[in-house]
Amino acid sequence: MSSRAPPKALLQDMVVPPRQLFGPGPSNMADSIAETQSKNLLGHLHPEFVQIMGDVRLGLQYIFKTDNNYTFAVSGTGHSGMECAMVNLLEPGDRFLVVEIGLWGQRAADLANRMGIEVKKISAPHGKAVPVEDIRKAISEYKPNLVFVCQGDSSTGVAQPLETIGDACREHGALFLVDTVASLGGTPFAADDLKVDCVYSATQKVLNAPPGLAPISFSDRAIEKIRNRKQRVASFYFDALELGNYWGCDGELKRYHHTAPISTVYALRAALSAIAKEGIDESIQRHKDNAQVLYSALKKNGLEPFVEDEKLRLPCLTTVKVPEGVDWKDVAGKMLTNGTEIAGGLGATVGKIWRIGTFGINSNKAKIENVVELLSNSIKETRSKI
Amino acid sequence: MSSRAPPKALLQDMVVPPRQLFGPGPSNMADSIAETQSKNLLGHLHPEFVQIMGDVRLGLQYIFKTDNNYTFAVSGTGHSGMECAMVNLLEPGDRFLVVEIGLWGQRAADLANRMGIEVKKISAPHGKAVPVEDIRKAISEYKPNLVFVCQGDSSTGVAQPLETIGDACREHGALFLVDTVASLGGTPFAADDLKVDCVYSATQKVLNAPPGLAPISFSDRAIEKIRNRKQRVASFYFDALELGNYWGCDGELKRYHHTAPISTVYALRAALSAIAKEGIDESIQRHKDNAQVLYSALKKNGLEPFVEDEKLRLPCLTTVKVPEGVDWKDVAGKMLTNGTEIAGGLGATVGKIWRIGTFGINSNKAKIENVVELLSNSIKETRSKI
Repeated sequence: MSSRAPPKALLQDMVVPPRQLFGPGPSNMADSIAETQSKNLLGHLHPEFVQIMGDVRLGLQYIFKTDNNYTFAVSGTGHSGMECAMVNLLEPGDRFLVVEIGLWGQRAADLANRMGIEVKKISAPHGKAVPVEDIRKAISEYKPNLVFVCQGDSSTGVAQPLETIGDACREHGALFLVDTVASLGGTPFAADDLKVDCVYSATQKVLNAPPGLAPISFSDRAIEKIRNRKQRVASFYFDALELGNYWGCDGELKRYHHTAPISTVYALRAALSAIAKEGIDESIQRHKDNAQVLYSALKKNGLEPFVEDEKLRLPCLTTVKVPEGVDWKDVAGKMLTNGTEIAGGLGATVGKIWRIGTFGINSNKAKIENVVELLSNSIKETRSKI
Repeated sequence: MSSRAPPKALLQDMVVPPRQLFGPGPSNMADSIAETQSKNLLGHLHPEFVQIMGDVRLGLQYIFKTDNNYTFAVSGTGHSGMECAMVNLLEPGDRFLVVEIGLWGQRAADLANRMGIEVKKISAPHGKAVPVEDIRKAISEYKPNLVFVCQGDSSTGVAQPLETIGDACREHGALFLVDTVASLGGTPFAADDLKVDCVYSATQKVLNAPPGLAPISFSDRAIEKIRNRKQRVASFYFDALELGNYWGCDGELKRYHHTAPISTVYALRAALSAIAKEGIDESIQRHKDNAQVLYSALKKNGLEPFVEDEKLRLPCLTTVKVPEGVDWKDVAGKMLTNGTEIAGGLGATVGKIWRIGTFGINSNKAKIENVVELLSNSIKETRSKI
């Protein structure tokens, strides 16, 4: 017998009850994605796996709408995409402009603080976007090296307009960084048309894949800045040039970098295959159409979206005002007990809103009407207790 | 139709041929682990998932042989464990001693260089370990803040003795960091007895789980140093105190940090369950016994281990000398075409050795004898061509 007793919990089977995941992510895995994860592992340098990595790169270029060579996935969750972008694109002495419409701007600013980088924030009251002209003005005045915008902030449900920001960045020598973790595939985005220099996302939202990879893409301008850094990137794990080589982006002989999360890469390929079969524009349109279904169902039940301007609402993640006198946590807890997740606020929005994610396969008319009915019933039950 | 044509490759099914993975990792997934990955996702804050994370923590304490509260898994592959350890335990002005017995010591030194940390290396010729008395002497003379040792270097197949290094670290105020990526579960290790302050590993070696998580543990001494840092950790993704909170190590209310790779955590739990059922000491003994099977089979076929001193051989990864006049790559390529992977060298050992991993379920007498037979036949075929 071993010198330590094994933990009793591990001698028992794992319990995984079924869940309808209508929170801010992870969303439900599609069956076609889930089944890939049980497939046997390949080595990360085997030709068949290299082929799968190549397919993933093509799929990511397709959904980001970019021809960037340096398009790949970081072996970490969504936030690792932010770190990968920032540790490569910022150097000591650089100036960083953050457009803050919720938690994600705050987090980018916090990370820059940790890195010792000077940060300027331009913020909107939560529930609103920052007017693009204000961003352009801030770029021309502050002359940042890098501008951060979160396209869809999962803490507020706001979709920040991006048009013309890329032009202002080019005019004033800044690089343009966009977080599409909660928005990609659910709201229009085109990296090259928008003149985006770096964009990252996550797998567990619209893509319906498990969390564990952060799709990312760097423009040639971004790669040029990285190649000309005065100091080496202070991370090996997130070094964009090393990762790009590992993913076959530079056409050079592949160097060993790390062991890719094989199963998660399989799942991402399956997710990209699903979106390729539907069409990226068709996916975006479906999310837009079903957001209308959600707004109607909310209205019918006397509930109101938190983001007042409909044009600024993220179609795949809707924030809903918690009615006066209702305990948001009690309602969400009751729904979860019954197998359906919606979430409360995050950061500054805690207590004020619920968040209903309708990502990928969950952007479906019948499912959405069902979730709102469950929400409405749970509110009634909670109220009747008072 | 979408404005961009979808990549043709993604309209086709993914090809995953079966493979016997006897390289340095990933190893083959056990069926009991593979099937967990297709289970439906839970939210990362759902009570059932929090329970699974708790089970994983207990399992990691069991295999690391530690009571450290700060025992959890970083959401990244093995190398992310190294980065997490180093960005938390090193500050500007610190001195770092690296014991180098192969690629992993070089990589730790390289990462410290990127971080602007002063590094001293103490190296052994590849295929040998550094004498422990030399390490103790270096600690007393150089007075480092942190000492890095790789217990089993996957580039050379050497197992570095660790005994008494922890005592020397305590005596001279250093923290003791050990990489067990390729050794944990396959060679004796006991974090608390060895006075280790930080240890990390990976899931895709002895544990037979997919890559994507880095088990890690910090001693109270290590956490105290982190709490008393003059500068904040320059990473949010790898911040040990934030990760510890997220994994429930500090007993405080859980803050949102990132979205855990749910499926990979399921798989890690299943892997830890398998090792709990066998017993950690029994797993180590089995790897030791089967290493003897491998040595005998090699000898019978006229092949020699690269590490001459049998006591310094890593039982779960054996390096084998490439005989004079044989093309290592041709042999490994032939084996892979036939569905079985062994690897060549890495870094300084390229061309000189093959590497045969016998991790977890692949540490099995019949499988090992079969691999050596395939190797021997492939060498003969290659030779007959010349």
